Amino acid sequence: MCELLALSSSRPARLTFSLQTLAARGGPTGSAHDGWGVAFYQGPDVALFREPSAAADSALVRFLQSEGPATNLAISHIRHATQGTVSLANTQPFVRELGARTHVFAHNGDLPGIYSSGAFALGAARPVGQTDSEHAFCALLERLRAPWKAGTAPSVEARLSLLAAFAADLRALGPANFLYADGDALFAHGHRRMQRTSRRAEPPGLWLRQRHCPPAEPAPDLSGGVSIAQAEQTVVWIASVPLTDDAWRPLAEGEVLAVRDGEMLATVLAAA
Amino acid sequence: MCELLALSSSRPARLTFSLQTLAARGGPTGSAHDGWGVAFYQGPDVALFREPSAAADSALVRFLQSEGPATNLAISHIRHATQGTVSLANTQPFVRELGARTHVFAHNGDLPGIYSSGAFALGAARPVGQTDSEHAFCALLERLRAPWKAGTAPSVEARLSLLAAFAADLRALGPANFLYADGDALFAHGHRRMQRTSRRAEPPGLWLRQRHCPPAEPAPDLSGGVSIAQAEQTVVWIASVPLTDDAWRPLAEGEVLAVRDGEMLATVLAAA
Repeated sequence: MCELLALSSSRPARLTFSLQTLAARGGPTGSAHDGWGVAFYQGPDVALFREPSAAADSALVRFLQSEGPATNLAISHIRHATQGTVSLANTQPFVRELGARTHVFAHNGDLPGIYSSGAFALGAARPVGQTDSEHAFCALLERLRAPWKAGTAPSVEARLSLLAAFAADLRALGPANFLYADGDALFAHGHRRMQRTSRRAEPPGLWLRQRHCPPAEPAPDLSGGVSIAQAEQTVVWIASVPLTDDAWRPLAEGEVLAVRDGEMLATVLAAA
Repeated sequence: MCELLALSSSRPARLTFSLQTLAARGGPTGSAHDGWGVAFYQGPDVALFREPSAAADSALVRFLQSEGPATNLAISHIRHATQGTVSLANTQPFVRELGARTHVFAHNGDLPGIYSSGAFALGAARPVGQTDSEHAFCALLERLRAPWKAGTAPSVEARLSLLAAFAADLRALGPANFLYADGDALFAHGHRRMQRTSRRAEPPGLWLRQRHCPPAEPAPDLSGGVSIAQAEQTVVWIASVPLTDDAWRPLAEGEVLAVRDGEMLATVLAAA
């Protein structure tokens, strides 16, 4: 069971989240994990940390919990291998440059038909590893290439529309929860996920929590979350499972949303 | 003064090199540095660590000295900003995917005419930052795109020939020492560098050291170098300045060489 986590905030925040907490809360059992990664945006580029081994045993995870860079936008993934060997090349998030920005993608699900689907034909970007998830990202980049050709971000509406169509094509293949960012905005698609109760892939595939923190408020308890500078701050978290006990909203099946600097920009619901 | 360091070894080695040592030995003064980075190959992909701040003050550098991944191929860079702001996007090494492998590039020198040179026109790959070095890498990727189109590595001879032509074009613009790797081989180009004695850009721009370590030999003293498992091992280091007191060979001006797994594959000298 792969786990996704994203953060978008109005001020740089430090991800002191515990990948172990995410893994423990998300997985149906305390099963070992086959890799983990975090991408921290810094301007148009990304500091990417990944290891093809369990987060729970990782000295680098412990290092990042205290020393990781502050960021307005981060995407994290914990891998339970379903396709591809346990290797760095198969460890998410994946990153590629397009239009002079670093783009980041992480996926939870299973897309066995993607290799033969004409909707996901590859172009210039080629998978370095063997996962369906990286194949999906490379195909997405091909769809994004023309809109990003000018080197400036297309409108949020244009990007959201493109991502909604991409997500609809993915849903035809299998569970397709994903997080994607282009350095300007964060996009998330909620679909179906192996649920703890039913043991079947059902919605929700992602959950969302938004929090406004006034300047005077002490830093909240954010186990498995984010430590925030004690200044006015708005933060959006998106995760495979709720990471705290307060209000998280499940994404509708097929919902695609856009977030920037902790603020919801727009959301698109799948056609019934 | 930027500093370059590469390692190629027959068995996975742990880079316990001190970036501080490299900076201290290489720089004309103990000047502060504006960033550092290390790329560690693991199969066709790379674990990349970079920070837009001084290596000497970095908790991440200290972490990597004890916990960095073992690798057969690593490229490191220390930045003294000459073009572009101090930012992650301007911090080397740079990485891009091409032909289903992660390619790595690091440059020391100054190429002010590169933006208007027809020999370095950009294609699909665009610089995320503002450095001449990243522009050079993106232009190199354009030259490599057709040879790598099949998704398998072109012959070493073909790659070396292409890189020699690229290096010759760079030398027409300014000091152009670089390290480049494609996951299969390491390539280095030695040119001119600000020398401590003359204070002018003169050869050598890079130095090379090769060491065969028989199984019985204790791990050698490698201050600023590499700790090696006590097994038979061959290692090539390439650096801006000799990092140890034993024999380093200066690269000739315009020399381009190829190394794989600690073994010299081929070298090309510039036409007189």
